Amino acid sequence: MNKGRLEAFSDGVLAIIITIMVLELKVPHDSSIHAIIELLPVFMSYLLSFVYVGIYWNNHHHMMQLVKKVNGKVLWANLHLLFWLSLFPFATAWMGENHYDTIPVVLYGCVMLMAALAYFILEHTLLRLHGPDSDFASTFSSRAKDIVSIILNVVAIGGSFITPYVGITCYVLVAVIWFIPEKRVEKKLA
Amino acid sequence: MNKGRLEAFSDGVLAIIITIMVLELKVPHDSSIHAIIELLPVFMSYLLSFVYVGIYWNNHHHMMQLVKKVNGKVLWANLHLLFWLSLFPFATAWMGENHYDTIPVVLYGCVMLMAALAYFILEHTLLRLHGPDSDFASTFSSRAKDIVSIILNVVAIGGSFITPYVGITCYVLVAVIWFIPEKRVEKKLA
Amino acid sequence: MNKGRLEAFSDGVLAIIITIMVLELKVPHDSSIHAIIELLPVFMSYLLSFVYVGIYWNNHHHMMQLVKKVNGKVLWANLHLLFWLSLFPFATAWMGENHYDTIPVVLYGCVMLMAALAYFILEHTLLRLHGPDSDFASTFSSRAKDIVSIILNVVAIGGSFITPYVGITCYVLVAVIWFIPEKRVEKKLA
Amino acid sequence: MNKGRLEAFSDGVLAIIITIMVLELKVPHDSSIHAIIELLPVFMSYLLSFVYVGIYWNNHHHMMQLVKKVNGKVLWANLHLLFWLSLFPFATAWMGENHYDTIPVVLYGCVMLMAALAYFILEHTLLRLHGPDSDFASTFSSRAKDIVSIILNVVAIGGSFITPYVGITCYVLVAVIWFIPEKRVEKKLA
Repeated sequence: MNKGRLEAFSDGVLAIIITIMVLELKVPHDSSIHAIIELLPVFMSYLLSFVYVGIYWNNHHHMMQLVKKVNGKVLWANLHLLFWLSLFPFATAWMGENHYDTIPVVLYGCVMLMAALAYFILEHTLLRLHGPDSDFASTFSSRAKDIVSIILNVVAIGGSFITPYVGITCYVLVAVIWFIPEKRVEKKLA
Repeated sequence: MNKGRLEAFSDGVLAIIITIMVLELKVPHDSSIHAIIELLPVFMSYLLSFVYVGIYWNNHHHMMQLVKKVNGKVLWANLHLLFWLSLFPFATAWMGENHYDTIPVVLYGCVMLMAALAYFILEHTLLRLHGPDSDFASTFSSRAKDIVSIILNVVAIGGSFITPYVGITCYVLVAVIWFIPEKRVEKKLA
Repeated sequence: MNKGRLEAFSDGVLAIIITIMVLELKVPHDSSIHAIIELLPVFMSYLLSFVYVGIYWNNHHHMMQLVKKVNGKVLWANLHLLFWLSLFPFATAWMGENHYDTIPVVLYGCVMLMAALAYFILEHTLLRLHGPDSDFASTFSSRAKDIVSIILNVVAIGGSFITPYVGITCYVLVAVIWFIPEKRVEKKLA
Repeated sequence: MNKGRLEAFSDGVLAIIITIMVLELKVPHDSSIHAIIELLPVFMSYLLSFVYVGIYWNNHHHMMQLVKKVNGKVLWANLHLLFWLSLFPFATAWMGENHYDTIPVVLYGCVMLMAALAYFILEHTLLRLHGPDSDFASTFSSRAKDIVSIILNVVAIGGSFITPYVGITCYVLVAVIWFIPEKRVEKKLA
């Protein structure tokens, strides 16, 4: 089976997720600067989640470059990832609208953690399908970043019960780690 | 006529349906755990419908692998399927928000039944177009799963008038039946 | 310039329009059959508009099969069509929620008329680009259907001031005319 | 890395942005002509933003025709552009609903300016990737339009503090400048 429609469907879902999040930036009724300033926490959580969805799309795009085939298991592993990503708009809005209270920050971390685990599973499913001697396996043998960000998400969830600042710091940190360009795929393709 | 745009359009509609459903998870105004627990029935109905749309996309994807050509009838049979699938967000939200009351559970079953019938018709239209000697026909000659899930949906609709638990059990059962991997297409392609 | 992205973008916009319309089917707060019956006029207008968007997509798909090239003018003619189609959800919801009152039925007709004219312009732009000796020109030389439906829309707008039933009848008629399969493209391709 | 998914993802996001904007045209509860007239400012801002998103899509489409390869930096430069474009629905609705008050008109200009800068950066990133001897570089060496529209946006932001009419005039002017067909890409391809 070819990977074309899996890519197209994932692109579609990610494009909609990223755009739906902006709907939570509710248009204020008055036209003062104050009205905009009040939206700042919601805007910041939108920005954070936009970067995350961007990272996932970017990584998905890179990873799929080396994928030669897909099967039913891969389709479900991918849908599983999309399920958790589809909860981003909800978790983002709840966190932003409640000014980064403990429980919303924890929930955001849970959704992030589940998405990270789902990505891990998708990568693993693809690794098994392509076998240990594939370009895919040699490129994705080291998965340090995945593991570090899963750990950071766990720390974020636990630490937020002390203060939500721990969670927010971890979330920004994860974004920074992934923002650093991934050269493995480009090297392999070159 | 080639099948590319039919796939692209279906992917688009399915991607939007799946993501629109999450909008019914209304962001609560307070930040307590209690607010999240209250959303649980809506969340569960979202999960169920996400799996269903995932199944439809998965089957559509598998089926289209063996499709060699499409015509006007196929385009309309496909649009007919998308119409019923487009009512999933409504039926899902109504069922979740009313804590699985009788009428919403029945309506959910009706939408499911119509979608299942529409899929049946689409498959039938493609069978007729490709002829009895095609790869398509030899792969999709047995349609036991389709028929079983149509029967289960009828049982769900009727049984929900006794108790909605009958309906919900049937819906979960249908999901499980389809979740079991479909190997026919992969075998045929190999 | 190739036509791939024009098709992809149009598919995307049409897929979203068709799915956004369903959001106007507001989830009722109680779970009675009565609540569903009250939604019937909104549902009927959704069904009508779904069929129309389906027709546009279908025709667009057929027409694009014979398109060999596009230019800047075609891109804008296509965007012009998408603009009027993007007003379908608004016009549909307004008509449905006001139980087919005169003004909403007239507005619906205006949007329909503008979309029909936009399609006419798009076809004309493509005709000029491909020249009179092209497959495109020989297939789309007769445009009786386009002209009949433009006339019907004008009648609908005028007649609705007498009674909205004139408008609704015309809208259903236009849908029926276009629903009749278009064989020209398929013949040309064969 | 191939450019296919970057195009598909951008098409998806732009298609959704363009369609989400129409959701701000809230369906009025009564069916009078007056209700429609009251929506006129929101409609005009929708029209303006539709044209802008259309221009961005059109330019993106033209530019990508000459792109031979993409890398991680290009993906992020593209996401950066999409981020600012994703704020169009918010800025459009706020401006329209507040009848072109000073602050909303200024904010609209800021979003426009950031999008124009983001496009500039994306073009620059692609120029560097393709090198000075590429078709891409020879076609996009002159960037007068980009610079003029950035200046017009700055003027719009500043001038709106005197009267919002300055801003609105500039916005319309930018749209007109870009609406004039871009022949460079078509010439290069021919």
